[in-house]
Amino acid sequence: MTKKVLQFLADGNEEVGTLISANVLSRGGYEVTVAAVGLNDSRWAVGSKGQKTVPTTTIEMLAETAHSFDIILVPGGVVASRYLASRQDVLEIVRRHYDAGKLSTFLCAGPYVAKAAGIHIGKKLTSNPFVEADFVKDYNYQQDRVVVDGNMVTSLQALPFVYLYSRGPGTAFEFSFAILELDYGKGSEKIEKMKPGMVLPPSI
Amino acid sequence: MTKKVLQFLADGNEEVGTLISANVLSRGGYEVTVAAVGLNDSRWAVGSKGQKTVPTTTIEMLAETAHSFDIILVPGGVVASRYLASRQDVLEIVRRHYDAGKLSTFLCAGPYVAKAAGIHIGKKLTSNPFVEADFVKDYNYQQDRVVVDGNMVTSLQALPFVYLYSRGPGTAFEFSFAILELDYGKGSEKIEKMKPGMVLPPSI
Repeated sequence: MTKKVLQFLADGNEEVGTLISANVLSRGGYEVTVAAVGLNDSRWAVGSKGQKTVPTTTIEMLAETAHSFDIILVPGGVVASRYLASRQDVLEIVRRHYDAGKLSTFLCAGPYVAKAAGIHIGKKLTSNPFVEADFVKDYNYQQDRVVVDGNMVTSLQALPFVYLYSRGPGTAFEFSFAILELDYGKGSEKIEKMKPGMVLPPSI
Repeated sequence: MTKKVLQFLADGNEEVGTLISANVLSRGGYEVTVAAVGLNDSRWAVGSKGQKTVPTTTIEMLAETAHSFDIILVPGGVVASRYLASRQDVLEIVRRHYDAGKLSTFLCAGPYVAKAAGIHIGKKLTSNPFVEADFVKDYNYQQDRVVVDGNMVTSLQALPFVYLYSRGPGTAFEFSFAILELDYGKGSEKIEKMKPGMVLPPSI
């Protein structure tokens, strides 16, 4: 069955990480829902560099279906992440996803939402280097480009309480492939087939 | 004076390369104009993976000002690039830019536009590997991730007839930084200051 990803989208998002992660997961066969949260203009989010990104739905439309997603993806941008962290409806979805033992992923400044939701406290985490100071007290802060913590097994279906964090727009490809690798397995044919057309950097 | 970049945007564009290149050049201090060309829905382009990208203007609005851009940037996506290559107004702008000796840049399948405009024939070029066969006869085809050809000097202002080509979404960071390096110089403070917050892959 097609895996379903919920990505939150707010004004002030970091456009590159937001778009790359949704794009790569879509290439990987996932159904990505991009939910607008409190946009000034309901047609699109205005990112931190002024680029406009178009959501596929709104958080209000998700009220009944938020529990049906397999993966939650919180992209970055300090303004967007802090705003998402202030929204009780976002935090409630994130906590319920946690209680259901499903994969939660946070990119760049996205971990502000994990912290505000009070989840995964004391465990391994990374974030954009510019906001590191806001996480070192409450988490086991790492400086790796991608950090996975939780009870890792080979199949996403059986992955309880796994969290994936990454650092910024330049790590967004690795972040996205790390999600696919948790599901399909590292080096799987499905993933390797995606790479030639994308011409990824040799270090990925 | 702020350098001005003209990026063409059509339906079927490759979203990652389109967004990254505009984003990085904007971070680098350039003014990036994203001109819609023949969109089905005038509000946005629908990319090859269904992601919607919002233009800042239309090609029709540029009629009088197209000559004022310092850099032309043609992003990829086979459907978008072939469509742009079929548009006489696009080809005319690209040829006039060529005649003025200014920097032209092509990413992924974007070189279809260079070929249709009949510019830079016989010189070094690269493209997305999947469309390589369409360029090997008319160009000195390279398989490098980024290819620069022309009379290279250290300053963009004095760069006549320089062309920059790159291969795909995974090379979009290198492509964008190559443009900035042509202008500011490799290793310049301006460029190095951009990198920590972006957390680029070590190979870039």
